[in-house]
Amino acid sequence: MNVNFTPGPSQLFYTVADHAKVAFKEGIPSISHRSKKFESIFQKATDGLKELLGVPSDYAIFFTSSATEIWEKSIQNLVETSSVHFVNGAFSNRYFEIATQLGKKAVKIEVPLGQNFASVAIENYASELIAITQNETSTGVSITNAFIQEVRAKNPQAIIAIDAVSSLPYPALDYTLADTVFFSVQKGFGLPAGLGVWMVNPKCIAKAESLQKKGISIGSYHNIPTLLLNAKKNQTTETPNVLGIYLLSCVVEDFLRIGIKKIRQETDYKAAILYQALANHSIIKPFVTDPAAQSKTVIVADAGEHTSRLSEFLATRGLYAGDGYGQLKKSQLRFANFPAHSKEQFELLVDLIGEFK
Amino acid sequence: MNVNFTPGPSQLFYTVADHAKVAFKEGIPSISHRSKKFESIFQKATDGLKELLGVPSDYAIFFTSSATEIWEKSIQNLVETSSVHFVNGAFSNRYFEIATQLGKKAVKIEVPLGQNFASVAIENYASELIAITQNETSTGVSITNAFIQEVRAKNPQAIIAIDAVSSLPYPALDYTLADTVFFSVQKGFGLPAGLGVWMVNPKCIAKAESLQKKGISIGSYHNIPTLLLNAKKNQTTETPNVLGIYLLSCVVEDFLRIGIKKIRQETDYKAAILYQALANHSIIKPFVTDPAAQSKTVIVADAGEHTSRLSEFLATRGLYAGDGYGQLKKSQLRFANFPAHSKEQFELLVDLIGEFK
Repeated sequence: MNVNFTPGPSQLFYTVADHAKVAFKEGIPSISHRSKKFESIFQKATDGLKELLGVPSDYAIFFTSSATEIWEKSIQNLVETSSVHFVNGAFSNRYFEIATQLGKKAVKIEVPLGQNFASVAIENYASELIAITQNETSTGVSITNAFIQEVRAKNPQAIIAIDAVSSLPYPALDYTLADTVFFSVQKGFGLPAGLGVWMVNPKCIAKAESLQKKGISIGSYHNIPTLLLNAKKNQTTETPNVLGIYLLSCVVEDFLRIGIKKIRQETDYKAAILYQALANHSIIKPFVTDPAAQSKTVIVADAGEHTSRLSEFLATRGLYAGDGYGQLKKSQLRFANFPAHSKEQFELLVDLIGEFK
Repeated sequence: MNVNFTPGPSQLFYTVADHAKVAFKEGIPSISHRSKKFESIFQKATDGLKELLGVPSDYAIFFTSSATEIWEKSIQNLVETSSVHFVNGAFSNRYFEIATQLGKKAVKIEVPLGQNFASVAIENYASELIAITQNETSTGVSITNAFIQEVRAKNPQAIIAIDAVSSLPYPALDYTLADTVFFSVQKGFGLPAGLGVWMVNPKCIAKAESLQKKGISIGSYHNIPTLLLNAKKNQTTETPNVLGIYLLSCVVEDFLRIGIKKIRQETDYKAAILYQALANHSIIKPFVTDPAAQSKTVIVADAGEHTSRLSEFLATRGLYAGDGYGQLKKSQLRFANFPAHSKEQFELLVDLIGEFK
């Protein structure tokens, strides 16, 4: 048995290979993206996501090729002048950098790696968009609804953008506090990479339309008005990753059958036993020490000089950990805790970490 | 037997389902896009494409999510002020529109649907980019190397962009006449949609770098300098459609084994028998009447009032034609002639058209 604990691309959800087999048998990769059949797949995926995640009905859901694309398109469509970015790792910083590359006045609110923003006094930032990385994949820090609520309370006018790339479907986000939420499918949904999911509320749509009216370029085929025009017909602007959208629709159906409550409970259980194993270990420690900041879906172990030995030890038993990110590559390992990772696999992982000396 | 003659997404090449099975068995969708394994897949795909298509070694090859994305990115990266577009159908017009949406001074040189540009006196357009749709998918008109050569001769300074979305790998393009050539994989390569292939020469790279130096926004994660930086490592900027790139690398290998000469000969044969059947028919006619303009890879039949009856007749025998495009939906059918479509399937199609009265 091989289990991929890398935080993305990660282990495929166990049903995906069979869904793909059916897709090829039924000729899904050959259907027209203007056909009724495609429209029904699109609708099944988006309706299913709204039900699974509790997304308000006035949100629209668009498909892009990656969450990286959504970083770019959200800045282009929702920011005329300035954005504020809560930065506590490589991915929140990348979102900030993309805003800068697109010529916006982007401001960083930065804390050290491994921390959340509890030490920051939230202000009114007088900015058009506030970017919050709900789960920083590089360091395993997650942000609570309470934090988002405080940002919202102090910034009623701003668009709040939530990057939930490596956490959904786990967190019970309050979508009424945010204006746009996005993720990519190769993390928590256990799917092949090549698809980003971008959810926007009417405030985002109005903002993009107002920028367009002012003559500001908001891009072409993937600007919000064009995406919306097509999504209303359950279509996409371009020929999309049809197979990816089909597989997403199938896995969302699987998740609905299992139930989001059970998915969350199992995620909590698996996270609890791994954090406990790390906390009790003599030579490994959890990198994120504040329980309120510890991500349940990306768990980072600080193993210092023992890191490569731990990684190799786990690999001999078929468990593949993700390396630490960037400068922490040699001293940390990252473990994804997604619905694709079973309780039994986590119990084995915890046992092996317990044996490691 | 069902055969999909729609011009894209089209029939899958017959090896694709098996390649996908191997991919899932070997865990390809779970590999990291920063791994050696991914780099070897990237290199196999790009080296293979260069060999198959005869692309000069100084070209770089990038992966995007679609050819639509390449329309956008090529304008952003290669045009500061103005572009010229040869327009003879919906897709060449879309490229023009995207340039307009991105705020460029785009100029159209337009001829009626179903025609090439033989009637146009080529000039020096004093423009930064000249866009030529080598194969207009909406009408089945293709452009010759001789035409591209004339545009090049009169416009030595301009970047010549060739949209070969629905023709490659068939045409033996002269890449030294062009500066950038692109296509998407769900047409001639018989693959699931969700991947565009963008080939650029050093002149394009220099142009994008010069725009960037001037402080002009050329986009973020998919601008040419960033794509190049990653492609040099056989990597992508973002987590890409790894499965799609893997499948492309496999089909390119299959095509190399078959040989491009044989693929071209069979395409010529299939096109010849279908055009002959249309020319000899009492109530159906080829839409494109000038042999020099007739696309070999997208063949359009004008069946007037008999169109829906012909489409239904073919469907009863498992052959699915593409509808005519846009305003020609009710009076035309389009037949893709890609490597995925066998000689036997074309012979059956031709027999059935012969029977149709």
